Amino acid sequence: MFKPLLIEPESGFSLDVSGMGFSAAELEAMAPRFAAAASEMKKIEAGEIKNPDENRKVTHFGDRAEYTSGALFAEVERFSAGVREGRILSGTGKKFEALVVNGIGGSALGPQLMQFAINGPYWNELSSDRRCGALKVYFLDNTDSAEFVDLMQVMDPETTLQLVISKSGGTRETKNNMIAMEAVYAARGLDFGANAVAITMKGSDLDKHARENRFLAVFEMAESIGGRTSETSIVGHVPATLCGIDFERFLAGACAMDEWTRAEDPFANPAMILAASWYLAGNGRGDRNMVIVPYSDRLILLSRYLQQLVMESLGKELDLDGNVVHQGLNVFGNKGGTDAHAFIQQLNDGRDDFFATFIEVLTDAERIPVGDQVCIGDYLHGFLAGLNRALRRKNRRTIMVKIAKLSEFELGQIVALYERAVAIYAEFIHINAFHQPGVQAYKKAANNVLALADALREFSGKNRGFSGSAADFAAKIGASGDAFEVGGLLDKAVFNGAGIDRRDENGDWVYSVK
Amino acid sequence: MFKPLLIEPESGFSLDVSGMGFSAAELEAMAPRFAAAASEMKKIEAGEIKNPDENRKVTHFGDRAEYTSGALFAEVERFSAGVREGRILSGTGKKFEALVVNGIGGSALGPQLMQFAINGPYWNELSSDRRCGALKVYFLDNTDSAEFVDLMQVMDPETTLQLVISKSGGTRETKNNMIAMEAVYAARGLDFGANAVAITMKGSDLDKHARENRFLAVFEMAESIGGRTSETSIVGHVPATLCGIDFERFLAGACAMDEWTRAEDPFANPAMILAASWYLAGNGRGDRNMVIVPYSDRLILLSRYLQQLVMESLGKELDLDGNVVHQGLNVFGNKGGTDAHAFIQQLNDGRDDFFATFIEVLTDAERIPVGDQVCIGDYLHGFLAGLNRALRRKNRRTIMVKIAKLSEFELGQIVALYERAVAIYAEFIHINAFHQPGVQAYKKAANNVLALADALREFSGKNRGFSGSAADFAAKIGASGDAFEVGGLLDKAVFNGAGIDRRDENGDWVYSVK
Repeated sequence: MFKPLLIEPESGFSLDVSGMGFSAAELEAMAPRFAAAASEMKKIEAGEIKNPDENRKVTHFGDRAEYTSGALFAEVERFSAGVREGRILSGTGKKFEALVVNGIGGSALGPQLMQFAINGPYWNELSSDRRCGALKVYFLDNTDSAEFVDLMQVMDPETTLQLVISKSGGTRETKNNMIAMEAVYAARGLDFGANAVAITMKGSDLDKHARENRFLAVFEMAESIGGRTSETSIVGHVPATLCGIDFERFLAGACAMDEWTRAEDPFANPAMILAASWYLAGNGRGDRNMVIVPYSDRLILLSRYLQQLVMESLGKELDLDGNVVHQGLNVFGNKGGTDAHAFIQQLNDGRDDFFATFIEVLTDAERIPVGDQVCIGDYLHGFLAGLNRALRRKNRRTIMVKIAKLSEFELGQIVALYERAVAIYAEFIHINAFHQPGVQAYKKAANNVLALADALREFSGKNRGFSGSAADFAAKIGASGDAFEVGGLLDKAVFNGAGIDRRDENGDWVYSVK
Repeated sequence: MFKPLLIEPESGFSLDVSGMGFSAAELEAMAPRFAAAASEMKKIEAGEIKNPDENRKVTHFGDRAEYTSGALFAEVERFSAGVREGRILSGTGKKFEALVVNGIGGSALGPQLMQFAINGPYWNELSSDRRCGALKVYFLDNTDSAEFVDLMQVMDPETTLQLVISKSGGTRETKNNMIAMEAVYAARGLDFGANAVAITMKGSDLDKHARENRFLAVFEMAESIGGRTSETSIVGHVPATLCGIDFERFLAGACAMDEWTRAEDPFANPAMILAASWYLAGNGRGDRNMVIVPYSDRLILLSRYLQQLVMESLGKELDLDGNVVHQGLNVFGNKGGTDAHAFIQQLNDGRDDFFATFIEVLTDAERIPVGDQVCIGDYLHGFLAGLNRALRRKNRRTIMVKIAKLSEFELGQIVALYERAVAIYAEFIHINAFHQPGVQAYKKAANNVLALADALREFSGKNRGFSGSAADFAAKIGASGDAFEVGGLLDKAVFNGAGIDRRDENGDWVYSVK
């Protein structure tokens, strides 16, 4: 029988969907979908191929239960303790004080969420003593020279551990940053490998590169764990433990949630109820945006993490039978109460095209009085409850998640709950949640553009003084259909010393080869 | 005549809506709306009441053109130079090294965007010399004790300048942080006022408080400038200049864009074209989400800034004639190419319910080679162009904004372009873009909850041993309709030493007064 409030008394975790306004009958009519999804979830956990396009198993739900008792876990803990305690030293014999995590997408968002939630926003400004020897942390998660230059302003190569994360080993953004970083070390006569660690699949290019260059360690990533569900694997483990975070507790939280969300009774299973709420709210097509508003400054990255998990998993063109379905579920949000002074005006009054998920951390970090018997955190609660009340009274949809406090355990619960809800929702709508064909499509298109760049560079080298529109240049390199892309390359060339000028002629750019 | 590419040759700013797939006829059919909006924009700039609910003028477009020649601007510059150069000292005679900006919503998002875009992510980790005496900066933009406690870990009260920003002077979150901060200073025997500055309206509670407590300075904020459009006013100026940012250049960029976006010919006016693009893409009802993807790490906060500007302005229940319209326009995004490894899978393949706005910074921060004649930034361009190409080929909608480089000037252009596009779009849909009645509604509801908290505290104080469900407690305090809110207060009480226990009874919480 449907009951909108589900609680886990030991940890204090609760999920309340009463603000969604569903009738029991609506939920109970989901029974066939619940049964089908439950059966598929069992197949995932039994190790069947559940990512048919890539012919892969999907093992993140099960692997994390075994992980802490395995050799890899012990090896990482040993390595990390050695680094934190100054027994494993840099290439020039110094204690490592900082970590650069070079990875993108699934290799960055989880570690960023964890770091910000557990160590807070000012970790890097604490002294080594305050950090108990654990490392400061920086992220390279793009291929933007500004990001790299900014990091160079504060990074000491001799005391920085370089962690390179790429499952395939071929992720271009990550490779670019590694090449650039290797050049930084080489320019100073330092051995990059003696300051570097890699996480990648066995036999990948990165694996080979790391071994050839005698990286301090190479940790293997399983093929069957996708990037966006890798936070409970080695990808989450290495950065967390180097930064003094209790990864075992995080896994304990995830595994406790896994246990709960294996409940046979769908009405006692928070992942089933959460997925059903998304489904009913959006008519099974994602017609309502998922707005994630944690009332916790340290959880500001949660919406971004879930945005990847949900949208990359559920945003699909085809269903499992090959029908065109154009599915998806938009996710955004930042933090409450702050967001109430920003976009929440629209949630109150504007388009009724969302459901808001509020996440409350019940224990205040400190009881800071600001009035008669009232503390800072009481206002935070008051604003949350007030907004919830205002929205409910307008029949706007809300979900309430509560955790007792914010620590590794609760973060593990949240991650595991959403991972399973996503997998279940994918079953409801009969899609593959574990591939990302659109990302492949865009990579191909990017390669086409880079090939155009080569052609343009060759043309420019041989045709000094040539002048014309983007279309003229495109025609000259035999790419008349690609004038838009050629224009883009020319604009980029103008500002980066590539020998192209441009001027305005009646509101259009005219380019010339210098 | 409609032309999808608009360029401003001097600065290199361009807007290209060719990826939206509009026909010239569609745009040209907007002519009556263009004319009406242009006429209303003239009224705004002529100082007519354009926020009828609050009986206010809307002066941000005009004020910024006059601002730099006024006395307030000179006063702020003088004050800030004094602080940076160590002539204006802290209460204990020390040079200020850090700034705390205590403000929320419009008083935080603009300064945060500016700081991150111009000074970069690691500003606070640079030495005072590297900062040329300009201040490190921290933000208090919520009423979360965790945020406050985190700041306390790194803040030295004697060298920190406390900037309190509240237009009305009554913003509760800001007031809470000020009260808590005053207690920190008092506990150490320090004079808060001697380390504090305020920005507020003349005669506000904060104005009085600041004068009574002899703040170092009180800067006046005009009533006619709304929070979400205050970045080009005193609210943006004070934090920017204390952190070494050239605010005059920022205003120059905004004013240059204001000039351009006053163009009489709508087809030569980028704000008209941008607003029309939103209008046509979303059928005048916001049916498509606005996805903002700057290909620039330093612009990662732009989507959040625009989310407030757009959603708080356009998310309205009533139009100007009092008809219920439930308008709005959702905004989200982070940064490219990173987002391509996250939610962009859905944009490629999933729901066709968005238009993506890409923002490219043409000049690389540094030319960092990562292959044969190819640099890090070339890949960033390649991934942007590739994604754009992939989306266009699927008839997904994209807008392309390009800026030559990222400096104060270009940031001013972007802010001013979106401010005007929002005001114009509001005219297209005939709503008041300058009030926020939903925020008022939620504040009232929050006060109701805080009143319930008082009643509950009184009841608990007198009824030790009482035990029951949230509904039982609600009945006891005469608030039977508010069991949900009472339950929330009880959950909060359990974890914050307020004398309440709870236990699980058949899946429901039962509370008792200790």
